Amino acid sequence: MSVLVVGSVAYDGIEAPAGKVDRTLGGSATYISVASSYFTSPVRLVGTVGNDFDDRDTRFLKEKGVDLEGFKVDDSGRTFFWKGRYHENMNNRDTLDTQLNVFEHFDPVIPEVYKGSRIVCLGNIDPNLQLKVLDQVTEPRLTICDTMNLWIDITREALEETISKVDVLIINDQEAAELTGETNLVKSAKIIRKKGPKFLIIKKGEHGAHLYSDRFEFSVPAYPLASITDPTGAGDTFMGGFAGWLSRIDKIDEENLRRAVVYGTVMASFCVENFGTERLAKLSSYEIESRYDELRKLSAIPPRN
Amino acid sequence: MSVLVVGSVAYDGIEAPAGKVDRTLGGSATYISVASSYFTSPVRLVGTVGNDFDDRDTRFLKEKGVDLEGFKVDDSGRTFFWKGRYHENMNNRDTLDTQLNVFEHFDPVIPEVYKGSRIVCLGNIDPNLQLKVLDQVTEPRLTICDTMNLWIDITREALEETISKVDVLIINDQEAAELTGETNLVKSAKIIRKKGPKFLIIKKGEHGAHLYSDRFEFSVPAYPLASITDPTGAGDTFMGGFAGWLSRIDKIDEENLRRAVVYGTVMASFCVENFGTERLAKLSSYEIESRYDELRKLSAIPPRN
Repeated sequence: MSVLVVGSVAYDGIEAPAGKVDRTLGGSATYISVASSYFTSPVRLVGTVGNDFDDRDTRFLKEKGVDLEGFKVDDSGRTFFWKGRYHENMNNRDTLDTQLNVFEHFDPVIPEVYKGSRIVCLGNIDPNLQLKVLDQVTEPRLTICDTMNLWIDITREALEETISKVDVLIINDQEAAELTGETNLVKSAKIIRKKGPKFLIIKKGEHGAHLYSDRFEFSVPAYPLASITDPTGAGDTFMGGFAGWLSRIDKIDEENLRRAVVYGTVMASFCVENFGTERLAKLSSYEIESRYDELRKLSAIPPRN
Repeated sequence: MSVLVVGSVAYDGIEAPAGKVDRTLGGSATYISVASSYFTSPVRLVGTVGNDFDDRDTRFLKEKGVDLEGFKVDDSGRTFFWKGRYHENMNNRDTLDTQLNVFEHFDPVIPEVYKGSRIVCLGNIDPNLQLKVLDQVTEPRLTICDTMNLWIDITREALEETISKVDVLIINDQEAAELTGETNLVKSAKIIRKKGPKFLIIKKGEHGAHLYSDRFEFSVPAYPLASITDPTGAGDTFMGGFAGWLSRIDKIDEENLRRAVVYGTVMASFCVENFGTERLAKLSSYEIESRYDELRKLSAIPPRN
């Protein structure tokens, strides 16, 4: 099934205990697309960049099998730039600089040929824009949405509407708490699922992820890593692996949703091993499938005897 | 296989968001023994209490199949008393009162008939006392040890010796960090396992538990609960379920160690549902096995397809 990805394409400056980079390709749509590209082709990316966007990065996306018909180069300004610094424990970060640039006027126009996309990934952008995308797609089999604290704070109403319309909401534990005022995940998940989404995935960073639905729940540990270089984009990458897997199968059933959560977890584990998309850029199927199998072994509970 | 439990038997006063109790039966040996009692009988408890120890509590332990030959009533004083208050998030607590009473002079003497016990549980007590226990047992098949921050701080040397001598160390993530100065669990586990224990289990509260060993690793999520009444004793109860299961089987192999970690997790999930040993006191096999099966389903990763 075809995958449509709408979100930001950006340059990031990142400072972390392991080092720093001044300007690396980032943005939610980038991470989602690149992660998805390991499972399906083409991935249709709708986003906007400025006049400083590097040809090398365009080539990189194309080489990954990302279709750029919906990718707009806006010559009126520069590409969205974000700069942040991670603390020692990697769970907290400070934003040092945000320059929206051309992204400020991003208005996602879905090309005609993309409108029938079956899997729709709404990266972390203004929920009003996410709603505009939902209005344009004609026959999505599965709509998947991410968000962040900012939108919970400033565009709550539009966010609630988006959440009520999507099939899958993927957020982290802090966002779930902020969205519901409830830190217990069982309670918080119940409240969020009442808002609409058939499937809710709560990401817990180093503690893994948990999928909630009417018929079943699924918990997967994070892939154990001895060090994390840069957590930027891990959540987007999770969505990319999740959506990528589902686009490859015919039937979105419990087994495949479980597999999709594992592939999301696997892709996120690669993402954090280097800055930006460095590690994500060059993966082999063997590496991906090996981590899938390792996670499966790691969490295998034998039947009672 | 026979289970020997050495640790504290106490009265606890507990304040938590869900309510308070002034005086309830507690102590590491109590929780370990009661949890183990669902798997094996008798459980041999070595501990000491004072002249205020309630006959009702002695009867309760006996009814649970706990052998009290090593259980000493010291008429010279009162029973160890601890009082604490849990914060809203239940992850932090303040100690409001600690009265060691007769426990101050606790010197574990292992009765002759207990010395051949195959599974030895060293509850959270002074590591110098844990070492004394290890000196007295003659043919343990598996020695299991817990500890706490206090002992890491004040009796580091004895603790390191204990750790070097036991087969299984069970601690929580904060203790692992304090023991190694390393918050990354992969690194921290490596450092601790070099100190001696063949198996290391790091408990992560609501995030489950992780077993590390030479040949395999195993991660299990916590049993999802919508509310937690009282976390006191959850770690001891984990050890009780873990040891209890292993005492019931002939072969301590990978499958059974995985099962033991799941049973530890299951028993801990019951423990926190009410104050003290209230919930733990009256469980059916059906309740225990159901949660085992639920955890198995919750974390089942399908094979790749």
